[in-house]
Amino acid sequence: MQTEFQIETRKAGLYEITRPVCAWVAKSGLAGGLLTLFVRHTSCSLLVQENADPEVQDDLKAFFDRLVPPSDDPAMAYLRHTYEGPDDMPAHIKAAMMPISLSIPVIDGHPVLGTWQGIFLFEHRTEPHRRKVAAHLA
Amino acid sequence: MQTEFQIETRKAGLYEITRPVCAWVAKSGLAGGLLTLFVRHTSCSLLVQENADPEVQDDLKAFFDRLVPPSDDPAMAYLRHTYEGPDDMPAHIKAAMMPISLSIPVIDGHPVLGTWQGIFLFEHRTEPHRRKVAAHLA
Amino acid sequence: MQTEFQIETRKAGLYEITRPVCAWVAKSGLAGGLLTLFVRHTSCSLLVQENADPEVQDDLKAFFDRLVPPSDDPAMAYLRHTYEGPDDMPAHIKAAMMPISLSIPVIDGHPVLGTWQGIFLFEHRTEPHRRKVAAHLA
Repeated sequence: MQTEFQIETRKAGLYEITRPVCAWVAKSGLAGGLLTLFVRHTSCSLLVQENADPEVQDDLKAFFDRLVPPSDDPAMAYLRHTYEGPDDMPAHIKAAMMPISLSIPVIDGHPVLGTWQGIFLFEHRTEPHRRKVAAHLA
Repeated sequence: MQTEFQIETRKAGLYEITRPVCAWVAKSGLAGGLLTLFVRHTSCSLLVQENADPEVQDDLKAFFDRLVPPSDDPAMAYLRHTYEGPDDMPAHIKAAMMPISLSIPVIDGHPVLGTWQGIFLFEHRTEPHRRKVAAHLA
Repeated sequence: MQTEFQIETRKAGLYEITRPVCAWVAKSGLAGGLLTLFVRHTSCSLLVQENADPEVQDDLKAFFDRLVPPSDDPAMAYLRHTYEGPDDMPAHIKAAMMPISLSIPVIDGHPVLGTWQGIFLFEHRTEPHRRKVAAHLA
Protein backbone atom coordinates (compact mmCIF):
# COMPACT_ATOMS: atom_id res chain seq x y z
CA MET A 1 0.00 0.00 0.00
CA GLN A 2 1.36 3.40 -0.90
CA THR A 3 0.32 6.99 -0.49
CA GLU A 4 1.79 10.47 -0.34
CA PHE A 5 1.38 13.01 2.42
CA GLN A 6 1.61 16.71 1.61
CA ILE A 7 2.74 19.12 4.30
CA GLU A 8 2.45 22.87 3.84
CA THR A 9 5.28 24.49 5.78
CA ARG A 10 5.17 28.16 6.75
CA LYS A 11 8.79 28.60 7.85
CA ALA A 12 11.70 26.58 9.23
CA GLY A 13 10.77 24.28 12.11
CA LEU A 14 9.16 20.96 13.03
CA TYR A 15 5.70 19.96 11.79
CA GLU A 16 4.09 16.94 13.43
CA ILE A 17 2.53 14.40 11.06
CA THR A 18 1.91 11.55 13.52
CA ARG A 19 -1.86 11.79 13.34
CA PRO A 20 -2.40 11.58 9.53
CA VAL A 21 0.27 8.88 9.24
CA CYS A 22 -1.26 6.69 11.96
CA ALA A 23 -4.76 7.28 10.59
CA TRP A 24 -3.64 6.03 7.17
CA VAL A 25 -2.02 2.95 8.72
CA ALA A 26 -5.18 2.21 10.73
CA LYS A 27 -7.44 2.67 7.67
CA SER A 28 -5.29 0.26 5.65
CA GLY A 29 -6.59 -2.64 7.72
CA LEU A 30 -3.09 -4.15 7.86
CA ALA A 31 -2.55 -5.54 11.36
CA GLY A 32 1.20 -6.19 11.19
CA GLY A 33 3.84 -4.90 8.84
CA LEU A 34 6.40 -2.23 8.19
CA LEU A 35 5.75 1.45 7.56
CA THR A 36 8.33 3.40 5.57
CA LEU A 37 8.29 7.15 5.06
CA PHE A 38 10.53 8.94 2.56
CA VAL A 39 10.76 12.70 2.04
CA ARG A 40 11.10 13.68 -1.64
CA HIS A 41 13.28 16.73 -1.03
CA THR A 42 16.86 17.59 -0.14
CA SER A 43 16.24 20.52 2.21
CA CYS A 44 14.04 19.02 4.92
CA SER A 45 14.21 15.96 7.19
CA LEU A 46 12.03 13.34 8.88
CA LEU A 47 12.44 12.97 12.64
CA VAL A 48 10.95 10.82 15.33
CA GLN A 49 11.15 13.04 18.38
CA GLU A 50 9.51 13.88 21.67
CA ASN A 51 6.04 15.33 21.16
CA ALA A 52 5.25 16.17 24.79
CA ASP A 53 7.12 19.46 25.36
CA PRO A 54 7.17 21.86 22.37
CA GLU A 55 10.38 23.37 23.78
CA VAL A 56 12.20 20.24 22.56
CA GLN A 57 11.28 21.24 19.00
CA ASP A 58 12.45 24.83 19.53
CA ASP A 59 15.73 23.60 21.05
CA LEU A 60 16.35 21.19 18.16
CA LYS A 61 15.92 24.03 15.68
CA ALA A 62 18.13 26.34 17.79
CA PHE A 63 20.92 23.76 17.99
CA PHE A 64 21.03 22.98 14.27
CA ASP A 65 20.78 26.68 13.34
CA ARG A 66 23.93 27.28 15.43
CA LEU A 67 25.72 24.20 14.12
CA VAL A 68 24.96 25.14 10.50
CA PRO A 69 24.67 28.95 10.28
CA PRO A 70 23.29 30.72 7.18
CA SER A 71 25.77 30.95 4.32
CA ASP A 72 26.05 34.76 4.73
CA ASP A 73 27.53 34.20 8.20
CA PRO A 74 31.30 34.88 8.07
CA ALA A 75 31.95 31.40 9.53
CA MET A 76 30.40 29.87 6.41
CA ALA A 77 32.28 31.98 3.84
CA TYR A 78 33.74 28.81 2.31
CA LEU A 79 30.35 27.70 0.95
CA ARG A 80 29.88 28.14 -2.79
CA HIS A 81 26.27 27.06 -3.44
CA THR A 82 24.73 30.33 -2.25
CA TYR A 83 22.64 31.72 -5.12
CA GLU A 84 19.37 30.14 -3.84
CA GLY A 85 19.65 32.16 -0.62
CA PRO A 86 21.61 32.00 2.65
CA ASP A 87 19.30 29.29 4.04
CA ASP A 88 19.67 26.94 1.05
CA MET A 89 23.05 25.24 1.46
CA PRO A 90 22.60 24.96 5.26
CA ALA A 91 19.28 23.22 4.50
CA HIS A 92 21.09 20.65 2.34
CA ILE A 93 23.67 20.11 5.09
CA LYS A 94 20.96 19.56 7.72
CA ALA A 95 19.20 17.19 5.31
CA ALA A 96 22.42 15.15 5.16
CA MET A 97 22.74 15.01 8.97
CA MET A 98 19.19 14.00 9.80
CA PRO A 99 17.03 11.17 8.40
CA ILE A 100 15.17 11.44 5.10
CA SER A 101 13.65 7.97 5.42
CA LEU A 102 12.15 6.23 8.45
CA SER A 103 11.03 2.62 8.87
CA ILE A 104 8.70 1.76 11.74
CA PRO A 105 7.26 -1.71 12.48
CA VAL A 106 3.46 -1.86 12.67
CA ILE A 107 1.78 -4.09 15.28
CA ASP A 108 -1.98 -4.44 15.81
CA GLY A 109 -2.60 -1.72 13.23
CA HIS A 110 -0.34 0.87 14.87
CA PRO A 111 3.24 2.01 14.25
CA VAL A 112 5.13 0.93 17.41
CA LEU A 113 5.96 4.48 18.46
CA GLY A 114 7.05 4.84 22.07
CA THR A 115 4.97 6.86 24.53
CA TRP A 116 6.65 10.18 23.75
CA GLN A 117 7.50 9.58 20.10
CA GLY A 118 5.94 11.69 17.39
CA ILE A 119 6.76 11.80 13.66
CA PHE A 120 7.85 15.21 12.38
CA LEU A 121 8.79 16.85 9.14
CA PHE A 122 11.68 19.22 9.89
CA GLU A 123 11.54 22.11 7.41
CA HIS A 124 14.99 23.70 6.95
CA ARG A 125 14.06 26.48 4.49
CA THR A 126 12.78 29.85 5.71
CA GLU A 127 10.11 30.33 3.01
CA PRO A 128 6.87 28.29 2.89
CA HIS A 129 7.08 25.02 0.95
CA ARG A 130 4.75 22.19 -0.06
CA ARG A 131 6.57 19.03 1.07
CA LYS A 132 5.82 15.51 -0.17
CA VAL A 133 6.37 12.45 1.99
CA ALA A 134 5.96 9.10 0.23
CA ALA A 135 4.63 6.28 2.42
CA HIS A 136 4.87 2.54 1.90
CA LEU A 137 3.15 -0.11 4.03
CA ALA A 138 3.60 -3.85 3.62
CA MET B 1 8.06 -11.77 11.86
CA GLN B 2 8.39 -9.31 14.69
CA THR B 3 10.01 -9.15 18.10
CA GLU B 4 11.34 -6.66 20.60
CA PHE B 5 14.81 -6.55 22.09
CA GLN B 6 15.32 -5.04 25.52
CA ILE B 7 18.67 -3.50 26.39
CA GLU B 8 19.53 -2.48 29.94
CA THR B 9 21.90 0.46 29.75
CA ARG B 10 24.05 1.44 32.73
CA LYS B 11 25.26 4.83 31.51
CA ALA B 12 25.84 6.75 28.28
CA GLY B 13 27.77 4.78 25.66
CA LEU B 14 27.49 2.10 22.99
CA TYR B 15 25.99 -1.33 23.70
CA GLU B 16 26.50 -4.00 21.06
CA ILE B 17 23.40 -6.03 20.13
CA THR B 18 24.72 -7.82 17.03
CA ARG B 19 24.63 -11.28 18.62
CA PRO B 20 21.00 -11.40 19.85
CA VAL B 21 19.78 -9.73 16.64
CA CYS B 22 21.61 -12.20 14.36
CA ALA B 23 20.52 -15.14 16.53
CA TRP B 24 16.88 -14.09 16.14
CA VAL B 25 17.27 -13.74 12.36
CA ALA B 26 18.92 -17.19 12.17
CA LYS B 27 16.21 -18.80 14.33
CA SER B 28 13.48 -17.31 12.13
CA GLY B 29 14.40 -19.73 9.35
CA LEU B 30 14.02 -16.96 6.78
CA ALA B 31 16.81 -17.32 4.22
CA GLY B 32 16.45 -13.99 2.40
CA GLY B 33 14.68 -10.80 3.38
CA LEU B 34 14.99 -7.46 5.06
CA LEU B 35 15.66 -6.81 8.74
CA THR B 36 14.46 -3.51 10.20
CA LEU B 37 15.26 -2.27 13.70
CA PHE B 38 13.53 0.72 15.30
CA VAL B 39 14.32 2.19 18.71
CA ARG B 40 11.20 3.27 20.62
CA HIS B 41 12.81 6.24 22.37
CA THR B 42 13.94 9.79 21.60
CA SER B 43 17.17 9.88 23.63
CA CYS B 44 19.19 6.99 22.20
CA SER B 45 20.27 5.89 18.71
CA LEU B 46 20.97 2.80 16.61
CA LEU B 47 24.36 2.62 14.94
CA VAL B 48 26.16 0.21 12.70
CA GLN B 49 29.78 0.77 13.60
CA GLU B 50 33.18 -0.88 13.84
CA ASN B 51 33.18 -3.60 16.48
CA ALA B 52 36.89 -4.49 16.31
CA ASP B 53 38.56 -1.75 18.35
CA PRO B 54 36.59 -0.58 21.43
CA GLU B 55 38.41 2.78 21.21
CA VAL B 56 36.19 3.59 18.22
CA GLN B 57 33.19 3.48 20.55
CA ASP B 58 34.93 5.68 23.15
CA ASP B 59 35.92 8.17 20.45
CA LEU B 60 32.39 8.31 19.04
CA LYS B 61 31.03 9.13 22.49
CA ALA B 62 33.80 11.70 23.08
CA PHE B 63 33.10 13.46 19.79
CA PHE B 64 29.34 13.75 20.25
CA ASP B 65 29.73 14.83 23.91
CA ARG B 66 31.89 17.72 22.69
CA LEU B 67 29.60 18.58 19.76
CA VAL B 68 26.53 18.59 22.01
CA PRO B 69 27.63 19.57 25.56
CA PRO B 70 25.31 19.21 28.57
CA SER B 71 22.71 21.96 28.87
CA ASP B 72 24.39 23.38 32.00
CA ASP B 73 27.45 24.19 29.87
CA PRO B 74 27.57 27.97 29.20
CA ALA B 75 27.75 27.28 25.45
CA MET B 76 24.29 25.68 25.65
CA ALA B 77 22.61 28.45 27.68
CA TYR B 78 20.08 28.97 24.86
CA LEU B 79 18.42 25.58 25.49
CA ARG B 80 15.05 25.74 27.27
CA HIS B 81 14.07 22.07 27.76
CA THR B 82 16.32 21.55 30.79
CA TYR B 83 14.11 20.36 33.65
CA GLU B 84 14.77 16.65 33.00
CA GLY B 85 18.47 17.18 33.64
CA PRO B 86 21.49 18.59 31.75
CA ASP B 87 21.86 15.37 29.71
CA ASP B 88 18.26 15.30 28.47
CA MET B 89 18.05 17.88 25.67
CA PRO B 90 21.53 16.92 24.36
CA ALA B 91 20.23 13.33 24.22
CA HIS B 92 17.31 14.46 22.03
CA ILE B 93 19.71 16.37 19.78
CA LYS B 94 21.99 13.35 19.39
CA ALA B 95 18.92 11.21 18.69
CA ALA B 96 18.08 13.59 15.82
CA MET B 97 21.61 13.39 14.36
CA MET B 98 22.04 9.63 14.43
CA PRO B 99 19.76 6.84 13.14
CA ILE B 100 16.75 5.58 15.08
CA SER B 101 15.87 3.00 12.44
CA LEU B 102 18.12 0.66 10.45
CA SER B 103 17.28 -1.61 7.53
CA ILE B 104 19.68 -4.41 6.62
CA PRO B 105 19.18 -6.98 3.85
CA VAL B 106 19.33 -10.62 4.97
CA ILE B 107 21.01 -13.22 2.74
CA ASP B 108 21.40 -16.93 3.56
CA GLY B 109 19.91 -16.33 6.99
CA HIS B 110 22.33 -13.57 7.97
CA PRO B 111 22.13 -9.77 7.92
CA VAL B 112 24.73 -8.70 5.31
CA LEU B 113 26.93 -6.89 7.80
CA GLY B 114 30.45 -6.18 6.59
CA THR B 115 33.45 -7.76 8.29
CA TRP B 116 33.85 -5.02 10.90
CA GLN B 117 30.23 -3.99 11.24
CA GLY B 118 28.40 -4.46 14.52
CA ILE B 119 24.94 -3.21 15.53
CA PHE B 120 24.91 -0.93 18.58
CA LEU B 121 22.42 0.87 20.75
CA PHE B 122 23.94 4.26 21.60
CA GLU B 123 22.60 5.38 24.98
CA HIS B 124 22.71 9.18 25.33
CA ARG B 125 21.36 9.50 28.91
CA THR B 126 23.65 9.24 31.92
CA GLU B 127 21.26 7.22 34.13
CA PRO B 128 20.47 3.52 33.50
CA HIS B 129 17.53 2.89 31.17
CA ARG B 130 15.64 -0.11 29.79
CA ARG B 131 15.59 0.44 26.04
CA LYS B 132 13.22 -1.26 23.60
CA VAL B 133 14.19 -1.99 20.01
CA ALA B 134 11.39 -3.26 17.77
CA ALA B 135 12.47 -5.68 15.03
CA HIS B 136 10.71 -6.61 11.82
CA LEU B 137 11.82 -9.33 9.40
CA ALA B 138 10.13 -10.08 6.08
CA MET C 1 15.15 -9.42 -5.10
CA GLN C 2 18.66 -8.65 -3.96
CA THR C 3 21.90 -7.47 -5.47
CA GLU C 4 25.10 -5.71 -4.54
CA PHE C 5 26.54 -2.60 -6.12
CA GLN C 6 30.26 -2.02 -6.08
CA ILE C 7 31.62 1.51 -6.15
CA GLU C 8 35.30 2.23 -6.72
CA THR C 9 36.14 5.42 -4.88
CA ARG C 10 39.25 7.43 -5.72
CA LYS C 11 39.28 9.80 -2.75
CA ALA C 12 36.91 11.34 -0.22
CA GLY C 13 33.76 12.83 -1.76
CA LEU C 14 30.33 12.02 -3.18
CA TYR C 15 29.81 9.41 -5.91
CA GLU C 16 26.42 9.33 -7.59
CA ILE C 17 24.85 5.87 -8.00
CA THR C 18 21.33 6.90 -9.03
CA ARG C 19 21.63 5.51 -12.55
CA PRO C 20 22.74 1.91 -11.81
CA VAL C 21 20.31 1.69 -8.89
CA CYS C 22 17.32 2.86 -10.95
CA ALA C 23 18.35 0.64 -13.87
CA TRP C 24 18.35 -2.40 -11.55
CA VAL C 25 14.92 -1.48 -10.18
CA ALA C 26 13.55 -1.02 -13.71
CA LYS C 27 15.03 -4.34 -14.90
CA SER C 28 13.47 -6.17 -11.94
CA GLY C 29 10.04 -5.75 -13.50
CA LEU C 30 8.58 -4.91 -10.08
CA ALA C 31 6.05 -2.09 -10.54
CA GLY C 32 5.50 -1.16 -6.89
CA GLY C 33 7.50 -1.90 -3.79
CA LEU C 34 10.23 -0.72 -1.49
CA LEU C 35 13.91 -0.31 -2.33
CA THR C 36 16.41 -0.54 0.51
CA LEU C 37 20.13 0.21 0.21
CA PHE C 38 22.66 -0.65 2.91
CA VAL C 39 26.35 0.18 2.84
CA ARG C 40 28.53 -2.62 4.25
CA HIS C 41 31.20 -0.35 5.74
CA THR C 42 31.68 1.96 8.71
CA SER C 43 33.62 4.76 7.02
CA CYS C 44 31.28 5.91 4.25
CA SER C 45 27.63 6.97 4.04
CA LEU C 46 24.60 6.87 1.75
CA LEU C 47 22.95 10.20 0.96
CA VAL C 48 20.00 11.37 -1.06
CA GLN C 49 21.04 14.85 -2.11
CA GLU C 50 20.70 17.47 -4.80
CA ASN C 51 22.23 16.29 -8.06
CA ALA C 52 21.77 19.48 -10.09
CA ASP C 53 24.65 21.71 -8.89
CA PRO C 54 27.93 19.87 -8.17
CA GLU C 55 28.87 22.69 -5.78
CA VAL C 56 26.35 21.23 -3.31
CA GLN C 57 28.51 18.11 -3.14
CA ASP C 58 31.70 20.15 -2.64
CA ASP C 59 30.03 22.20 0.09
CA LEU C 60 28.76 19.09 1.89
CA LYS C 61 32.28 17.68 1.96
CA ALA C 62 33.72 21.04 3.08
CA PHE C 63 31.23 21.34 5.94
CA PHE C 64 31.78 17.85 7.33
CA ASP C 65 35.57 18.14 6.97
CA ARG C 66 35.41 21.24 9.18
CA LEU C 67 32.97 19.72 11.65
CA VAL C 68 35.09 16.58 11.98
CA PRO C 69 38.74 17.51 11.35
CA PRO C 70 41.47 14.86 10.84
CA SER C 71 42.69 13.27 14.08
CA ASP C 72 46.11 14.94 13.74
CA ASP C 73 44.41 18.32 14.08
CA PRO C 74 45.07 19.75 17.59
CA ALA C 75 41.30 20.15 18.13
CA MET C 76 40.95 16.34 17.86
CA ALA C 77 43.80 15.42 20.22
CA TYR C 78 41.34 13.54 22.46
CA LEU C 79 40.77 10.83 19.83
CA ARG C 80 42.49 7.50 20.55
CA HIS C 81 41.69 5.35 17.50
CA THR C 82 44.34 6.93 15.29
CA TYR C 83 46.65 4.12 14.08
CA GLU C 84 44.75 3.62 10.80
CA GLY C 85 45.54 7.20 9.77
CA PRO C 86 44.24 10.71 10.58
CA ASP C 87 41.23 10.25 8.28
CA ASP C 88 40.03 6.99 9.87
CA MET C 89 38.30 7.96 13.10
CA PRO C 90 36.73 11.09 11.49
CA ALA C 91 35.36 8.70 8.83
CA HIS C 92 33.69 6.58 11.54
CA ILE C 93 32.23 9.72 13.12
CA LYS C 94 30.83 10.93 9.79
CA ALA C 95 29.44 7.42 9.20
CA ALA C 96 27.56 7.75 12.51
CA MET C 97 26.12 11.17 11.58
CA MET C 98 24.90 10.35 8.09
CA PRO C 99 22.73 7.46 6.86
CA ILE C 100 24.12 3.99 6.14
CA SER C 101 20.75 2.64 5.02
CA LEU C 102 18.07 4.23 2.83
CA SER C 103 14.55 3.04 2.06
CA ILE C 104 12.74 4.49 -0.93
CA PRO C 105 9.25 3.53 -2.13
CA VAL C 106 9.03 2.34 -5.75
CA ILE C 107 6.05 3.34 -7.91
CA ASP C 108 5.54 2.40 -11.57
CA GLY C 109 8.97 0.79 -11.63
CA HIS C 110 10.84 3.85 -10.36
CA PRO C 111 12.10 4.91 -6.92
CA VAL C 112 10.02 7.99 -6.03
CA LEU C 113 12.98 10.35 -6.01
CA GLY C 114 12.09 14.02 -6.19
CA THR C 115 13.12 16.14 -9.16
CA TRP C 116 16.51 17.09 -7.73
CA GLN C 117 17.21 13.98 -5.68
CA GLY C 118 20.13 11.72 -6.52
CA ILE C 119 21.51 8.76 -4.55
CA PHE C 120 25.15 9.12 -3.52
CA LEU C 121 27.80 7.12 -1.77
CA PHE C 122 29.78 9.54 0.41
CA GLU C 123 33.34 8.25 0.77
CA HIS C 124 34.98 9.55 3.95
CA ARG C 125 38.44 7.96 3.55
CA THR C 126 41.18 9.69 1.56
CA GLU C 127 42.57 6.53 -0.13
CA PRO C 128 40.70 4.65 -2.90
CA HIS C 129 38.30 1.95 -1.68
CA ARG C 130 35.99 -0.65 -3.21
CA ARG C 131 32.64 -0.05 -1.50
CA LYS C 132 29.77 -2.54 -1.41
CA VAL C 133 26.15 -1.45 -1.23
CA ALA C 134 23.62 -4.22 -0.65
CA ALA C 135 20.22 -3.68 -2.28
CA HIS C 136 16.88 -5.25 -1.46
CA LEU C 137 13.67 -4.82 -3.45
CA ALA C 138 10.30 -6.24 -2.46
